Amino acid sequence: MDPLASLDFTKSGGLVTAIAVDDATGEVLMVAAMNEQTLRMTLEKGEAVYWSRSRGVWHKGEQSGHTQRVKSLWLDCDGDVVLLRVEQRGGGACHTGKRSCFFRKLEDGRWVDVGEQVFDPAQVYGR
Amino acid sequence: MDPLASLDFTKSGGLVTAIAVDDATGEVLMVAAMNEQTLRMTLEKGEAVYWSRSRGVWHKGEQSGHTQRVKSLWLDCDGDVVLLRVEQRGGGACHTGKRSCFFRKLEDGRWVDVGEQVFDPAQVYGR
Repeated sequence: MDPLASLDFTKSGGLVTAIAVDDATGEVLMVAAMNEQTLRMTLEKGEAVYWSRSRGVWHKGEQSGHTQRVKSLWLDCDGDVVLLRVEQRGGGACHTGKRSCFFRKLEDGRWVDVGEQVFDPAQVYGR
Repeated sequence: MDPLASLDFTKSGGLVTAIAVDDATGEVLMVAAMNEQTLRMTLEKGEAVYWSRSRGVWHKGEQSGHTQRVKSLWLDCDGDVVLLRVEQRGGGACHTGKRSCFFRKLEDGRWVDVGEQVFDPAQVYGR
């Protein structure tokens, strides 16, 4: 059976939520979306391919080299979220150069940047 | 400044994605949504309160006792996903009685249930 038949793409207009987790540390790196096409591309390539409302098919890291090698794929109970355990090339998933997109922590009512800077976005993406 | 001013509720019709992670192990437990109201309730109560399209305000575990004590709150780079590190009372976040909603792993093209059963949903939710 096609494993994608277990997914529910109807709740968000053809999209499922996709979470990327660092396979080595378990840290949540980022959250994006996939449609059926980009999930199939992800399985074929073995690298995360998301769907972005602004850019369409988004093979993450294609330009920067900071691709995400998929080590395992997981599905939630109601089939509308996939979780990818990945090897993050370049060490950081976030366009800001942080390891994780979740680098802001709420402390005493304000967001504090506690993220680790692992690359310089100006160098990776150019100006 | 109101920390919620850093959030972008506009992308998904008043909702942000909310990820609950086990604070002790780092395991991703579940993914749901919050609106501004339930995020404020979460901060006030110190327990996860989600927004469900079907049930509205959803104070998770209110009936079962399996609440999620919020240990820390994190925000992603573009402000449309919050991550909660929680203490999961009762040991399991999923309505199936599994520890995590992500209990299906893709192996050789099919989903395999590898999740740990931590409670009996028939006992917890009644019949």
